[in-house]
Amino acid sequence: MNLQELINKSVRELTDVHHSKYRYIPMYDKQLPSAQTLKEIIEVIREIVFPGYFGNPSVTENTVRYHAGVNTEKLYYLLFEQIYRALAFESNDANTPTIAKEKTFFFIERLPDIKRLLSTDVKAIYDNDPAAKSFGEIIFCYPAIKALLNHRVAHELYLSEIPLIPRIVTEMAHAETGIDIHPGATIGEYFSIDHGTGIVIGQTAVIGNHVCLYQGVTLGAKKFVLDEAGNPMDLPRHPILEDNVTVYSNASILGRITIGKGTIIGGNVWLTYSVPPNSRIIQTKAVEDKFVDGLGI
Amino acid sequence: MNLQELINKSVRELTDVHHSKYRYIPMYDKQLPSAQTLKEIIEVIREIVFPGYFGNPSVTENTVRYHAGVNTEKLYYLLFEQIYRALAFESNDANTPTIAKEKTFFFIERLPDIKRLLSTDVKAIYDNDPAAKSFGEIIFCYPAIKALLNHRVAHELYLSEIPLIPRIVTEMAHAETGIDIHPGATIGEYFSIDHGTGIVIGQTAVIGNHVCLYQGVTLGAKKFVLDEAGNPMDLPRHPILEDNVTVYSNASILGRITIGKGTIIGGNVWLTYSVPPNSRIIQTKAVEDKFVDGLGI
Amino acid sequence: MNLQELINKSVRELTDVHHSKYRYIPMYDKQLPSAQTLKEIIEVIREIVFPGYFGNPSVTENTVRYHAGVNTEKLYYLLFEQIYRALAFESNDANTPTIAKEKTFFFIERLPDIKRLLSTDVKAIYDNDPAAKSFGEIIFCYPAIKALLNHRVAHELYLSEIPLIPRIVTEMAHAETGIDIHPGATIGEYFSIDHGTGIVIGQTAVIGNHVCLYQGVTLGAKKFVLDEAGNPMDLPRHPILEDNVTVYSNASILGRITIGKGTIIGGNVWLTYSVPPNSRIIQTKAVEDKFVDGLGI
Amino acid sequence: MNLQELINKSVRELTDVHHSKYRYIPMYDKQLPSAQTLKEIIEVIREIVFPGYFGNPSVTENTVRYHAGVNTEKLYYLLFEQIYRALAFESNDANTPTIAKEKTFFFIERLPDIKRLLSTDVKAIYDNDPAAKSFGEIIFCYPAIKALLNHRVAHELYLSEIPLIPRIVTEMAHAETGIDIHPGATIGEYFSIDHGTGIVIGQTAVIGNHVCLYQGVTLGAKKFVLDEAGNPMDLPRHPILEDNVTVYSNASILGRITIGKGTIIGGNVWLTYSVPPNSRIIQTKAVEDKFVDGLGI
Amino acid sequence: MNLQELINKSVRELTDVHHSKYRYIPMYDKQLPSAQTLKEIIEVIREIVFPGYFGNPSVTENTVRYHAGVNTEKLYYLLFEQIYRALAFESNDANTPTIAKEKTFFFIERLPDIKRLLSTDVKAIYDNDPAAKSFGEIIFCYPAIKALLNHRVAHELYLSEIPLIPRIVTEMAHAETGIDIHPGATIGEYFSIDHGTGIVIGQTAVIGNHVCLYQGVTLGAKKFVLDEAGNPMDLPRHPILEDNVTVYSNASILGRITIGKGTIIGGNVWLTYSVPPNSRIIQTKAVEDKFVDGLGI
Amino acid sequence: MNLQELINKSVRELTDVHHSKYRYIPMYDKQLPSAQTLKEIIEVIREIVFPGYFGNPSVTENTVRYHAGVNTEKLYYLLFEQIYRALAFESNDANTPTIAKEKTFFFIERLPDIKRLLSTDVKAIYDNDPAAKSFGEIIFCYPAIKALLNHRVAHELYLSEIPLIPRIVTEMAHAETGIDIHPGATIGEYFSIDHGTGIVIGQTAVIGNHVCLYQGVTLGAKKFVLDEAGNPMDLPRHPILEDNVTVYSNASILGRITIGKGTIIGGNVWLTYSVPPNSRIIQTKAVEDKFVDGLGI
Repeated sequence: MNLQELINKSVRELTDVHHSKYRYIPMYDKQLPSAQTLKEIIEVIREIVFPGYFGNPSVTENTVRYHAGVNTEKLYYLLFEQIYRALAFESNDANTPTIAKEKTFFFIERLPDIKRLLSTDVKAIYDNDPAAKSFGEIIFCYPAIKALLNHRVAHELYLSEIPLIPRIVTEMAHAETGIDIHPGATIGEYFSIDHGTGIVIGQTAVIGNHVCLYQGVTLGAKKFVLDEAGNPMDLPRHPILEDNVTVYSNASILGRITIGKGTIIGGNVWLTYSVPPNSRIIQTKAVEDKFVDGLGI
Repeated sequence: MNLQELINKSVRELTDVHHSKYRYIPMYDKQLPSAQTLKEIIEVIREIVFPGYFGNPSVTENTVRYHAGVNTEKLYYLLFEQIYRALAFESNDANTPTIAKEKTFFFIERLPDIKRLLSTDVKAIYDNDPAAKSFGEIIFCYPAIKALLNHRVAHELYLSEIPLIPRIVTEMAHAETGIDIHPGATIGEYFSIDHGTGIVIGQTAVIGNHVCLYQGVTLGAKKFVLDEAGNPMDLPRHPILEDNVTVYSNASILGRITIGKGTIIGGNVWLTYSVPPNSRIIQTKAVEDKFVDGLGI
Repeated sequence: MNLQELINKSVRELTDVHHSKYRYIPMYDKQLPSAQTLKEIIEVIREIVFPGYFGNPSVTENTVRYHAGVNTEKLYYLLFEQIYRALAFESNDANTPTIAKEKTFFFIERLPDIKRLLSTDVKAIYDNDPAAKSFGEIIFCYPAIKALLNHRVAHELYLSEIPLIPRIVTEMAHAETGIDIHPGATIGEYFSIDHGTGIVIGQTAVIGNHVCLYQGVTLGAKKFVLDEAGNPMDLPRHPILEDNVTVYSNASILGRITIGKGTIIGGNVWLTYSVPPNSRIIQTKAVEDKFVDGLGI
Repeated sequence: MNLQELINKSVRELTDVHHSKYRYIPMYDKQLPSAQTLKEIIEVIREIVFPGYFGNPSVTENTVRYHAGVNTEKLYYLLFEQIYRALAFESNDANTPTIAKEKTFFFIERLPDIKRLLSTDVKAIYDNDPAAKSFGEIIFCYPAIKALLNHRVAHELYLSEIPLIPRIVTEMAHAETGIDIHPGATIGEYFSIDHGTGIVIGQTAVIGNHVCLYQGVTLGAKKFVLDEAGNPMDLPRHPILEDNVTVYSNASILGRITIGKGTIIGGNVWLTYSVPPNSRIIQTKAVEDKFVDGLGI
Repeated sequence: MNLQELINKSVRELTDVHHSKYRYIPMYDKQLPSAQTLKEIIEVIREIVFPGYFGNPSVTENTVRYHAGVNTEKLYYLLFEQIYRALAFESNDANTPTIAKEKTFFFIERLPDIKRLLSTDVKAIYDNDPAAKSFGEIIFCYPAIKALLNHRVAHELYLSEIPLIPRIVTEMAHAETGIDIHPGATIGEYFSIDHGTGIVIGQTAVIGNHVCLYQGVTLGAKKFVLDEAGNPMDLPRHPILEDNVTVYSNASILGRITIGKGTIIGGNVWLTYSVPPNSRIIQTKAVEDKFVDGLGI
Repeated sequence: MNLQELINKSVRELTDVHHSKYRYIPMYDKQLPSAQTLKEIIEVIREIVFPGYFGNPSVTENTVRYHAGVNTEKLYYLLFEQIYRALAFESNDANTPTIAKEKTFFFIERLPDIKRLLSTDVKAIYDNDPAAKSFGEIIFCYPAIKALLNHRVAHELYLSEIPLIPRIVTEMAHAETGIDIHPGATIGEYFSIDHGTGIVIGQTAVIGNHVCLYQGVTLGAKKFVLDEAGNPMDLPRHPILEDNVTVYSNASILGRITIGKGTIIGGNVWLTYSVPPNSRIIQTKAVEDKFVDGLGI
């Protein structure tokens, strides 16, 4: 078989639309949102929310309104196109352009509140980390702020019932920070994450104010219910964390349970039941073990 | 000391080939595979396997064969060069170009099967995640699919005994998704990963069909045996998971043990022994603890 | 409201400097270090430390000194500018350019020692991983080496009391590898990390020689002390690991405790007290549990 | 005046829409064709017309149809968008998308003929240049072929009455080659240009087959007629060159005159009247002149 | 000789600072203006002067002031740096930063007038070209406008006695359009150029209002005078063209002569003496010549 | 006809290998030199020849040898690959790699002499242009130096009988500067060009020392001789200019004639016969002409 034959054979097999196993894949004639443009959108939002830290470094208190104007206009055009694509991916409604415009307007009106929430997060992280030297260091360097900006943006888009984009936006943060927050999760003010790698927060989780999570914490589902067709049902199935809860590294909290306010959960705990306010939960004490073989454990 | 003297001094010290501690480093006159090109190769494979989702968005059922032809040809030239470099890095065999060509051909012939396996993974992830709205969302957004595409590609190259490239390919997915699957690991059909950050699957692990892993799960080695020269021996040392096993977040399963089919392992468990089919293993219940000091735990 | 009105309204709200919640954000008239240039700096250092593996592939034993000279000069100019910006961000001292120059000189003088330490790490990783086939594979592919190069560079800059840059450099490695080592952490020779995702090493941790950590390990703080103003105090609060300690996956070790030399800590353990040399610590054995409902656990 | 005041003053003056002199400039709310995309379109056409010389170098006689398919589809989407923009720039017709589609289809149908014409030009240039070593050298290196490809493409678009784009496309060639052919000019088969810099061919020029022009030749208008409103009228006003005419360097031929077939025009001639077939026209002989001063002339 | 020896030999010869012929070349320790940044500066000016045609396409009458503000600020920072470098290249004056700032301010204040002049040029070109369909087409496509924008910018910088930059800016236009106007040339309102390739306008040329030049026209020097040291003296040596002069293609007008107002100069003329107002000058009529040999002329 | 049918029809017609008019075009299975890489090669040579002006701006008298070493090595690898491709394009000789290596070595050995010649050109241009303020301005800004560097490089490669590359290199300069010098032309020391656009120098032209040409000058062929097969013969057919000749703008000098030393040729002259040393040749005086119609000429 020469190269030409190999190519012809591969083309034939790879484009065989009748192959039974391939049935999940066909996706033609629709234009998906562009991951590249969504990245650009997040950068523009970062410039708008944290002027001077990201984007044009020469911005001053006096020229900041020129930059805000140009960036907001740019955001409108970029975001409208992506929202339009995402809506068109799921429906052929003739009103899609109008709906896309309304949702884009609505999002831009929410920007000042997103900025307000993020500024509470910056404060909370500063208060919880003795290693932090300034607010600026947190805004500019900390992965938690990257992840929270993407989440708070994605959550607004999720509430507007825009398909695909919220998930792409949170996955961008997930890839960069290892923090995986589903866009559906509800998160209060002054939320702080330290280190963050491995954190998973599920779709229906509800988090109060002044909550702090460490790396590797899972707020997950314990099980899910199938509907009559045998598909998993999208019901509340992740934990509720009330105000002022702290969860240490690698703890797994699963199911629609409530962690009462002021509670502290120790690291590496596996928790599947509700606990009352101000609880203190830790793993059973580890044990000393004599090994038979030299190296292993 | 001025800048010129500093540079001269640094050059002298840094290029001192007799420095005893540097003895692991010299690597001259060989051309390593290019990480940049391997990234491009993965993108081409993504376009071939999931047309319309990645690469040219205008592909339709009718023009897909033009795209498949161009992409397969492109893949051949890109991959041949990299396989050639990897083989030449380890050996000076005069037949290297011929061997590289054969291995490239063989890989391209395996592409349809890689596509088939990935389509089963898409189905399995859809069935396990109530938050997933469509197959398309999984293909386009989910990190698990990124990691599995890289793994299934790397595993084929690993079976062809191509050095370096399999590992680079899986490390690319590791960096992007936090999912670290050694290219040697054997993975069956309908494999699903949820969230995925922190998952580690070792070189000699064997995973059946319809297995599901959550974030932070380790399928690792408990210990390893040294050969007579004192180097660690490359023997089977990672777990076997039979069909329909589910492992929850942050569980560590270590050693050449067998997890019987249908078993469910709870989160945060440390497991170093085999368990029979249909077992249910969870961590000892966490305890309530009264703290002496206010803040700590 | 039309687009123009929307933009004007958003600009007004977003640039409202009197909004009480925004008070943490203003950052004008200072030029922050450039993340893009710091990335370039790390690449230049990689070329200097591991010639042939990174950067120009044609380097040979004979021409390596030309490359080292050009790269060292380039490093000087790039790094000086960034150190200058970082110092100017925190102070308006008229001597800043002179200080920046001295610190840049000092860092370049430390490069040969950074190279020496990294070569011990390469050796240690090789000795601990049966899957590793060559030193070259480790240097070129393993995330641990990426993370350690950034750490050892950042640690030198941290010791020179340069603000911001050390943290940006380690966060770059964190984003790429999921390994989060604070630039303040002290790490000995022959340090090895396997897989690595989810590892967190705190600011005041002290790690001896020949220590080995697996994925998901946390060397964290248990609690912190507030000063009179209510801000957390920057005191030693992370563990000390003596020589030849091994810690398995997902273990959390917290507080200013000492893990005696030769100790092995099993996976998923939560450890908040010191242990003597040569200890063996593992999690309480997991339990078999009978479930009532089919799917859940 | 500080920087802020300077900026505010400049913004005020520069955006003063009532400034009488600025009245030619306003252009809002219309999206012009993208020069960048038109460049890409020309590159795609080059790949289609001269496969192997431009674009993917691996194309072979066997895979050329895959490339042609992908490139033609790509061309359709890129060109449709630009034609749509150009039409919308001049009119608000609701049928614009339909018309744009028809014109794009029509252009693609003309591609084989464009390819045919260009292949005659390659042959003609080869026959006229003793320095040319192969057809390939002409296709790959000669500016004349760049200019003619752009012209023959632009001329088809001009005949389809598409605004703006034809001119942008010929100006791209003009900038690169110094050859300025108006898209309206009619040019026969086997047209050859040597060197080419400074050639100007006007809008209503008509050139027969087997014509050859050297650098600096102008086929221009002598004068133009104003209409009643005082605007210049767009009438035939450039020369007609019959078959087998040759014009040497820097000759200027002006007005709606006819150069009979087989005529040769010498260099640096200024010609404003028709000449019969097979004429030989040269400049009056230059003269020897004695200068008074040493250096000047 | 192997590669290493070749390199060493070449380095030795190429860096031989005592080679007598190389004495014009050394240029160390100075930072030249960046051609790349000057290109960016011209693009910013284009956006400011012709909003909607260049740069952000979404600009509207309402948002144009945001864009003007951002672009003017950006222009300030980019231009200041380049002017500083150019001044420092020629002098070590301690006031250089202050002078650079003043010259940058002055240039920005001149921008509205540059815009006014260019709008007269657009009008003049439109009135002289029957092929032009709209003002927009001229602004967006015509090389004359590119060349005149660069010239009018460069001329202001030239009048401010900034070294190097004026010439680089006009050479950028020269490379793109083939129109070579020395930044020192004085050009009135409503200046039009048609086609333009090959036009040369010398340093001390003075051009009135409503002047029109065609391709290949030279306004050059006839001779120059040497000073006592034997270097050419920088005296007025190029022509003066009074108002409403037209010069056709390839005419050469040389020396400090005056072309009286309303004069028309025909193509390919060589003119070295002054002519009174309203003259009409053309080349001696070309002649018919009988050739002996078939092909030659 | 829908899009799919259009594409299929176009592909069929465009790839029709039997179309008689397309017979000049097929070019498969050969890899042409890369225009992009040749551009990079010219940039490397510019850095080597004019350190400090191009490439790394931080080069100093002390570090220049590091840069020269790295750049020379880089040049070797880049150029070898391109020379290899060019030779392989014309022949299948098994020795091609060896020959390519020899020719690359030989070129690098010629670099110091290319540098020497260019430094004489810089001096000559400085002496001929009253507007030039420094040698540096000429090296950095003047198109003549760009064109001459490319020519002197291309001429060496031409003398080594390397196909294609010399022409591509001179066409690069032609596109940028409008100066078209055939790589075969022989040019002495201290050659100066002013402005340059439109200059054409033919393949067999021979130019002495201290020659100066102005814009638009053609040194061309008058006619060419056909061989028995009817192809033009590659014989000496362009002028010889002896030492110290000056030619003014737009003059055309054609045929294998000799312009005696010290001669000055005026602008716009058409010259096809030899002239003795120290001649002064100018165009017949232009005439005053009364026009009948108002506007025309």
